[in-house]
Amino acid sequence: MKTIQELGEKKVIEIILKCLEHMPNMPIPFGDDASAVEVGDGKLAVIKTDMLVGETDVPSGMSLRQASRKAVVMNISDLAAKGVRPIAALSSIGLPRSFTDEDIKQIGLGLNEGAREYDTYIIGGDTNEASDLIISCSLLGLCEKYTFMRRSGAKPGDIVAVTGYFGKTASGLKILLEGLSIPEKVRRPLIEAVLMPKARLKEGLALAKTGAITASIDSSDGLAWSLHELKEASGVGFSIRDVPVAPEVVEFAEENDLDPLELSLYGGEEYELILTVKPKLWETAKKAVGDLGTSLTRIGVVTSEKSIYLRIDEKTKPIERRGWEHFKMRTR
Amino acid sequence: MKTIQELGEKKVIEIILKCLEHMPNMPIPFGDDASAVEVGDGKLAVIKTDMLVGETDVPSGMSLRQASRKAVVMNISDLAAKGVRPIAALSSIGLPRSFTDEDIKQIGLGLNEGAREYDTYIIGGDTNEASDLIISCSLLGLCEKYTFMRRSGAKPGDIVAVTGYFGKTASGLKILLEGLSIPEKVRRPLIEAVLMPKARLKEGLALAKTGAITASIDSSDGLAWSLHELKEASGVGFSIRDVPVAPEVVEFAEENDLDPLELSLYGGEEYELILTVKPKLWETAKKAVGDLGTSLTRIGVVTSEKSIYLRIDEKTKPIERRGWEHFKMRTR
Repeated sequence: MKTIQELGEKKVIEIILKCLEHMPNMPIPFGDDASAVEVGDGKLAVIKTDMLVGETDVPSGMSLRQASRKAVVMNISDLAAKGVRPIAALSSIGLPRSFTDEDIKQIGLGLNEGAREYDTYIIGGDTNEASDLIISCSLLGLCEKYTFMRRSGAKPGDIVAVTGYFGKTASGLKILLEGLSIPEKVRRPLIEAVLMPKARLKEGLALAKTGAITASIDSSDGLAWSLHELKEASGVGFSIRDVPVAPEVVEFAEENDLDPLELSLYGGEEYELILTVKPKLWETAKKAVGDLGTSLTRIGVVTSEKSIYLRIDEKTKPIERRGWEHFKMRTR
Repeated sequence: MKTIQELGEKKVIEIILKCLEHMPNMPIPFGDDASAVEVGDGKLAVIKTDMLVGETDVPSGMSLRQASRKAVVMNISDLAAKGVRPIAALSSIGLPRSFTDEDIKQIGLGLNEGAREYDTYIIGGDTNEASDLIISCSLLGLCEKYTFMRRSGAKPGDIVAVTGYFGKTASGLKILLEGLSIPEKVRRPLIEAVLMPKARLKEGLALAKTGAITASIDSSDGLAWSLHELKEASGVGFSIRDVPVAPEVVEFAEENDLDPLELSLYGGEEYELILTVKPKLWETAKKAVGDLGTSLTRIGVVTSEKSIYLRIDEKTKPIERRGWEHFKMRTR
């Protein structure tokens, strides 16, 4: 017998999946970022659930309001990566007995903010007594079946692209948890990335409409880890030539003698989209995202060789499958 | 400032609800047992979430497999009470690090059982590290809007009715937690009621089709507490003249000098349906449930006076608003 700690999350999920009888004709297979059932007229009802656990997911410096907002936003990010608009949310909450009425209010306000920022509503849920704060959020979305952006459609020759810039959350966490220093002007956006993450919902919805996207995932487990997930689901590889590192991260890394690429590749809790794009529709995809004021950066190309290499400055090295799972933040 | 313990669950929910902006034109108001959005053609997509917490919801003697099965069944019971067929389930799981591969397998098997017994499937979810076992289950169902059985439609003169018999879970818990004794023949069904609860899904679906039901709830918080919930949602009262006590409970109560009515009214985690029925359609409702081999017992009548009285043997006494919340079981 092995403990969970020895097994790791992937193996735990594998054991559970072996126990489950699979629904016949599942429109979206197990292992994608959201689940769905067909509801007629070519439409999918899409459901998604993910849990925020106080001890492992709430770093010191994050308020209850920010934590409960994040519990909603991290779920919305998954629907964003699938191109699905959330229409309603539920929250199932576990609360320690010592929490006060003011704590509860902050949690309620955070839940509402997380939902309203993305034009959806909390429409139900339940509360429970628990030894640690637990916020399990569930989302319902509806979409046309053909617009659902899966993990599994990347083809050799497709362009690999990402929204936004990377490394801010990993840097922000180092400031919050390890007390690393940095001038206030740079500190603020890095901390903000941790405490008030944003989901790329508008971008995901716009991209789903273009028909340009062959595979999609959010970067919540880190850029490297998420690329590996896309690779496995699509049965391809990636040659990566560029990683858009946020300018604040470059400055933070310099100041603290850290590797900005390491911060950008192997972080996590960062909610950008990682996409593979049909080359012919690249400009369409770029415009759809650009119109929203967001950058879509070409970072590489899909290869038939099933490995992921970073080729920068004439050097080639593998991008490893590591990230969030392996250096989970701890609040105590 | 007050702690949750002082506030109680109802007040906690009230605080959270005050923080939430309400979705316009919600087809089902907050406070019912499931939430819904309209998806066109007079149909509702119904969603429901509820969390099982190891410390408070899993009594000693209940296996992990039984606990995870129950996490699904307790959610199905809520959809049953609304007359909604579950079409898919998600489970978001928090696991202590010390859990083994065999523990995970038992949890997976229990989740699958809970879903398959009610002809649905687990189609997704996620796993997390937590200090205690947490199983948050979410269900998606679809129904015609007019068949959704709310808490709020009871009218004076309607018949109050329940499926099945009461008191088994409260008795079973006393055997498991307090070690009360009883001959094996009676012990078994009482323990079984705790460890392997059944949801009245077929009965709920059949009743929803009759058009006979004006209000409905499951008895998961105890018969008394749930009657009070129906009373408040419908703005009526009840005159109760009969409580169907399970024969095993009568025997258990006699043997241990307990009050069988107390066990039946103020227990909980018992998944019968409590309904109000249009008098003219009483026989239709009774037949719909009877055809499934289940009893539907008339226990009283809806009154315009907003209180709940038990009138048995010429004596009248109020049925109090107490139950599960107030003597939550503890495993340690």
